[in-house]
Amino acid sequence: MLNDRIEAAIQRHICSAAVQGPAPIGLHKAIDYSVFPGGARIRPVILTSVAMACGDDQPTMTDAAAAALEFIHCASLVHDDLPCFDNAPTRRGKPTVHRQFSETTAVLAGDSLIVGAFSTLTSQVDVDARRACNLVAHLANYTGFPNGICAGQAWEDEATIDLKSYHLSKTGALFIAATQMGAIAAGHDPDPWQELGARIGQAFQIADDLMDVVCADQDMGKPAGQDAKNDRPSAVSEYGVDGAKRLLNDILGGAIASIPSCPGEAELAKMVQLQSTRLMSVDRQATHS
Amino acid sequence: MLNDRIEAAIQRHICSAAVQGPAPIGLHKAIDYSVFPGGARIRPVILTSVAMACGDDQPTMTDAAAAALEFIHCASLVHDDLPCFDNAPTRRGKPTVHRQFSETTAVLAGDSLIVGAFSTLTSQVDVDARRACNLVAHLANYTGFPNGICAGQAWEDEATIDLKSYHLSKTGALFIAATQMGAIAAGHDPDPWQELGARIGQAFQIADDLMDVVCADQDMGKPAGQDAKNDRPSAVSEYGVDGAKRLLNDILGGAIASIPSCPGEAELAKMVQLQSTRLMSVDRQATHS
Repeated sequence: MLNDRIEAAIQRHICSAAVQGPAPIGLHKAIDYSVFPGGARIRPVILTSVAMACGDDQPTMTDAAAAALEFIHCASLVHDDLPCFDNAPTRRGKPTVHRQFSETTAVLAGDSLIVGAFSTLTSQVDVDARRACNLVAHLANYTGFPNGICAGQAWEDEATIDLKSYHLSKTGALFIAATQMGAIAAGHDPDPWQELGARIGQAFQIADDLMDVVCADQDMGKPAGQDAKNDRPSAVSEYGVDGAKRLLNDILGGAIASIPSCPGEAELAKMVQLQSTRLMSVDRQATHS
Repeated sequence: MLNDRIEAAIQRHICSAAVQGPAPIGLHKAIDYSVFPGGARIRPVILTSVAMACGDDQPTMTDAAAAALEFIHCASLVHDDLPCFDNAPTRRGKPTVHRQFSETTAVLAGDSLIVGAFSTLTSQVDVDARRACNLVAHLANYTGFPNGICAGQAWEDEATIDLKSYHLSKTGALFIAATQMGAIAAGHDPDPWQELGARIGQAFQIADDLMDVVCADQDMGKPAGQDAKNDRPSAVSEYGVDGAKRLLNDILGGAIASIPSCPGEAELAKMVQLQSTRLMSVDRQATHS
């Protein structure tokens, strides 16, 4: 199914698979450890779903884009967990990369995955150089400075935070990358797909804020209460738990309504509905546990 | 002249120049601080010289490639200086990025520059998407895992070091990237340019090892004696100071002999000769000081 396709793409494209001679084994293991076993792979799921809704005429391009996006996401988790950021002891129910290996290896694993993401996209140069190049451009835009997750993370060091820019770049960026890269991979214009990605990103941000407040550590696979502990802005601190839940519901409705006209529009709406149900049920579990 | 052209390209393409709205100012400043004022910009000088020797038929492509390569080099310096690696207090005669700003900002500045390098190359998609995509592929190969500077740095954490792989990836990689990307930018086959880059890289590695041993701190702009202090393999520990100097001379001669046949072969040989003289004179200054 969709998740099998995505896992196969990630396996095929991960930079640790490219070894053809001596290589530092610690970094090799840390790269694999950062990517496998994965979480829900939600960003590549969205990317691939959008590409399929747009016809998916170059499936290897879609697969490379999905894998590349996941590598960037994994890299961001490894770097965000570092002692100088969250100093997180666990992630996805196991020790974080810097705890399992070393801090230097964690920095290099993150760097290697960022680079590996762009390398992955260039594997499609002979399929369609223009699409591959546009995928690099969009992924870079939503990863780096000033519009990507690097900028999003950096807002947390600022004395005054621009909340809209902060949320858009910290969480929204890779969801917008997901919808727009799905469109590009299938040869469609990415611009109409910005809104869907932004709304899904907002929904995940709010769901994450809710989980941080109401879930126990064991449900998240990482320590809860980090937002309050680190004095980070959150939808819950802004609107309260009930207000944040209402907002989440509204945004998910808007996400489905924003899907651009395309051959697989109805199927895609079902996928977004499915993801929405999962998000809302996590919220219900959390508030009832 | 050549250096003015390169500085202008770096100024034009740096990711901090892309701000069009609110952005975290600390990261903005740290990115600029990491790149300006620069060192000798030796990698972009080599890249641009090779492109010119190959005809330089798309100068904006050459400029983007030169800037991208320098961003990767600057990113590697910022991350290598971090407390968990060299914990260096100074670089190019001023406080390192993590000392001047913060450790989190240094991690993010490095990440942003890596991403910005690939973004820079995609600015040329309308000039020639295939060349731009091949530049991304080559730069990624010599930056990440298993063949790039990330792998080179990671060798230092291994119990047993493969010295050939270590030197090739740690220092050689970005010099090979320089010669091959210069060829690609001008529409030439990169393969015959591998040897020149590798030999220049070896020469710089040996010169750097010599400087580390014999220079005073103020001459290098960074602390000397780091190799011995950190028990790192070095040409000096392997061959002694005199042996390393003989090796350096031999390699520089071989570099000039390896230049592939191309329209500007003679001019390029002069450039390599000039760089060689500079390297050898640094060595003479060092041993006489």
